[in-house]
Amino acid sequence: MNPVETIIKKRNNNPLSPTEIEYFVKSYINNSIPEYQMSAMLMAIFLNGMQPDEVYKLTEIYINSGDTVKFPAEWKTVDKHSTGGVGDKITLTLAPIVAACGAKIPMISGRGLGHTGGTLDKLESINGFRTDYSKQDFSKFIEKSGIAIISQSKELVPADKRIYALRDVSGTVESLPLITASIMSKKIAEGAQNLVIDLKVGSGAFIKKLDTAKELAELLITVGEKFGQKIAVVFSCMNSPLGEYIGNALEIKETVNYLKGKHLPDIDILTKELAIHMLLLSGKARDKKEAIEKIENAISSGEALNKFRELIIQQGGDAGFIENTDLLPQAKHSRQIFAKCSGWIHEIDSQAIGYALVEVSAGRRQLDSVLNYSSGARLLRKVGDRLQEGDLLGEIYFNDESNIDEICDKIVNSYSIKDSFCEPDSIIIESINKWISL
Amino acid sequence: MNPVETIIKKRNNNPLSPTEIEYFVKSYINNSIPEYQMSAMLMAIFLNGMQPDEVYKLTEIYINSGDTVKFPAEWKTVDKHSTGGVGDKITLTLAPIVAACGAKIPMISGRGLGHTGGTLDKLESINGFRTDYSKQDFSKFIEKSGIAIISQSKELVPADKRIYALRDVSGTVESLPLITASIMSKKIAEGAQNLVIDLKVGSGAFIKKLDTAKELAELLITVGEKFGQKIAVVFSCMNSPLGEYIGNALEIKETVNYLKGKHLPDIDILTKELAIHMLLLSGKARDKKEAIEKIENAISSGEALNKFRELIIQQGGDAGFIENTDLLPQAKHSRQIFAKCSGWIHEIDSQAIGYALVEVSAGRRQLDSVLNYSSGARLLRKVGDRLQEGDLLGEIYFNDESNIDEICDKIVNSYSIKDSFCEPDSIIIESINKWISL
Repeated sequence: MNPVETIIKKRNNNPLSPTEIEYFVKSYINNSIPEYQMSAMLMAIFLNGMQPDEVYKLTEIYINSGDTVKFPAEWKTVDKHSTGGVGDKITLTLAPIVAACGAKIPMISGRGLGHTGGTLDKLESINGFRTDYSKQDFSKFIEKSGIAIISQSKELVPADKRIYALRDVSGTVESLPLITASIMSKKIAEGAQNLVIDLKVGSGAFIKKLDTAKELAELLITVGEKFGQKIAVVFSCMNSPLGEYIGNALEIKETVNYLKGKHLPDIDILTKELAIHMLLLSGKARDKKEAIEKIENAISSGEALNKFRELIIQQGGDAGFIENTDLLPQAKHSRQIFAKCSGWIHEIDSQAIGYALVEVSAGRRQLDSVLNYSSGARLLRKVGDRLQEGDLLGEIYFNDESNIDEICDKIVNSYSIKDSFCEPDSIIIESINKWISL
Repeated sequence: MNPVETIIKKRNNNPLSPTEIEYFVKSYINNSIPEYQMSAMLMAIFLNGMQPDEVYKLTEIYINSGDTVKFPAEWKTVDKHSTGGVGDKITLTLAPIVAACGAKIPMISGRGLGHTGGTLDKLESINGFRTDYSKQDFSKFIEKSGIAIISQSKELVPADKRIYALRDVSGTVESLPLITASIMSKKIAEGAQNLVIDLKVGSGAFIKKLDTAKELAELLITVGEKFGQKIAVVFSCMNSPLGEYIGNALEIKETVNYLKGKHLPDIDILTKELAIHMLLLSGKARDKKEAIEKIENAISSGEALNKFRELIIQQGGDAGFIENTDLLPQAKHSRQIFAKCSGWIHEIDSQAIGYALVEVSAGRRQLDSVLNYSSGARLLRKVGDRLQEGDLLGEIYFNDESNIDEICDKIVNSYSIKDSFCEPDSIIIESINKWISL
C-alpha cells in the first residue's frame, strides 16, 4: 500500500477502509510511515472527518496496540471521563460515593498539561500516595475496595499515546473522530464496561457549542456500543471554574469538604448527576429515585468519606489530612484579589485563569515541569454574580513572590464584568442515557 | 511565534499574515520547524486554500530564498510554462520559432518524474548537450542567441525545492495556491518578464476541469501582475498524448520533423497559439496577424530550424542529428500494437501510457532512475478517431524484451473504444491575454 495514496484518499474526503486505517496506524507505530505523513493524514482527518465505522476501526487498532484489562462481566464496572475543565475535581468527589454504593470503578487517569489539572497530580499532593501500580494490583484493588485510580502504563494504548503527542504539535487536537478514538480506546482497554462522560460545553471548554458536543456524544456512544460498552453523556456547563478551589492540594481539600457535607451548588449538582448515571449503568440502582437515595445516604452516613480514606490508604497515602486538611501542603503566601468595577459577571476566561496558575506552578507548562502542590487559587464568583467594585473575588496561593502582581492582574482581568444583567448558568445542560429510562 | 498556533489559524480557515507566512517558511528552511508541522500546514492550505495576497507573499519568500537572474527591462524576456502532459515537446518546437522572431527566452527547465517527461531529459538525449550552466553563461546565451535551456541550480528558489519534495510525499501536490507559488517563483527568479502558460485540461492532465483551470489561471495572473510580470494563459486539451512520439530521443526527432515542415495538427496548432502570445507579450509583433506571418516565415525560411541548431551547438551538443535523425539514440527493438475492437476512441488514459513507458525506461520511477533515451512509443491515434479491429495503433520502441507483452497490453488497454460516435477534441480550448487586444 502507498501511504501517499491513502493520504490523498482521505484528503479527497473518501472514507478509508479498515485495512487502510490499520496499515497506516501500524506503519506509523513501527516507524515505516514517517511523522510528516502521519501529520498530513491527521490534518486531512481533522478537516474532512471520519465516518463512525472508521472511528471504530481506529479505536480498535489503538486498543490492540497494547495491553488490556478485563473484568468479569457481572462486575458491571463503570468509569467516568471528563473532557476537561478548570477546577474539575469531580472524579474525586464522585468515585468514592459511587464505590460506597457498591459499584466497581476502574480508573486509569492522566496528569495535567496546559490550563487544566490532572486527577493524578491532585492525588499525588497527598503524602505517600502512589499511582504506578501494575495491572494485577489494579484488578485486586477493584475487587477489594471497588475503586482504584492509577496512571496509564506504557503498555496501555501506546498507539494513541504516540499519535496524541503528534496531534498536540500539529494543530490536530480538537478533532471529534480523533478525540473519540483517543477516549474510547483508553476506557475500553482499562476494562470499563460502562462509562459516563462529563462533556464540558462553554467558554472554558474546548467545545464551545452544544451542537458540536452532541455530535461528539453521538460518536462516542456509537463507538462504545460497537465494543459492547454502555455510555451515558452529561453535558455540563463550563463557563466558570468548577467549585471554589483550583490547584492540586487545594482541590483535595475541597473534595474532603464536599464529602464531609459542605456542598457548593455546582460541584454538588454535577457530582450527583454523574453518580446517578453511574449507579444506573452499573445496576446498583434500579431507577433515578433509588440512585438519589443511595447517593444522599452514602454522603450523610460518612460511607463515601470512608471509601475515600480506603482509596488513599490502599494506594499508600497518609490519610491524616482527612481529619485535618492543614496537613496537606500549604502555600507560603496568599493574596486577595478584588473586583475592578461594579456589574454582573458575563464571562470568566477559565483558560486564562488556568494558564495564570501554571505560572505559580499549580499546573505544567511542559511535560517535565515541576509542580508546586500547594499553590493555586480560591475563586468565589461565578458567571451571573453581581459585584460591587472592590468586592472580594478570591485569593491566590503561591510560594514565589516574583511576578505575582502580574499573575493576579491576569486573573482579575479574566472576569468580564458588565453593567447589564446576566443570568447565572445551570451546571447541567442536558443528559443522555439511552440504556435506562430516567 | 508558535508554529502550532499558525497551523491552527490556517486549519480554521483564517488567512495568514505576511509575517506568519515568512516565519513559517523561513523556519522550515532553517530546520527550526520540523517536517511534520510543515506537512500539517500544507494539508491545511490544500483543504482551506489561500487568498491571492497569501500566495503572493509565499511566492516572494520562495524567490528570496535563493539566487535570482535579472535581464534589462528592454529585453522583454518571455518564457513558456506547461503544467505537464504526456508527449509534451512543445518547448522544443516553440522556443526556436519565437527566438528566430527576435524574442529573448530564458528557460530554466526540469527533469521528468512519474508519467510525464522533462525537457532537459529530451535535450540530453542529444550527444554532448549540457544543461548545467552558470547564471553568467545563461545571461550570455540569452544576449547572444536569444535562447538557452538550462537546469535549475541549487541556488534558485531552494525553498520551493524543499517544500515541493515534502508536498510530493504528503499528498499535497495539486493545490492551486501551492502550484501557483511554485511556478511563479521559478519563472520570476529566472528573469522572465513575460510568461505564457500552457494550462493543460483533461483526462491526461492533473487538472480535469476547465473551472479549476480558470481558477488557477486567475491566481497565476494576479500573482504575476504583483511582480510586474505579464502573463497570458492558453487552456489546451490534454485528452490524447501530444503529437505522435513519446520518449526522449523520439521527441527530439519529432521536433526536427516539425521544424522541417512536417506539421501534425495538434503540435502545430498549439505551438503557433503559444508563439503568438509570446511574440505579442515580448513586443516582437504588434498584433495577431503580424505574429502569424512572422511565425510562418520563421518556419518556412528555415530560421527556426537554424535557431534550434544554434541552441544545440551553443550548449555543447552535436547537431548532426538535425540533418540525419538516425544519429539520435535508436532502440534495439520495436513492436507494433493494434486495436482490439472496432469503434470510436472515447478516451485515452495518457497517464497509464506514461507509466507504461516508464517501464521501458523512457521515464523515471524515482529521482535516481536511469533513462534509456531511445525507448518510447509512436502513437498514431487520437480521441475521436474511428478504428477497425486490428488497425495499427502505433509502435513501441524498447531495449529490454522482458515484460514487453505486458507493457504493450497496458498501452493497448489505455484506449477506450466504444461503438458510439465521439467528437474529436480541439487542442485549444481558450486563451486569455489581458495585455493585448487580439
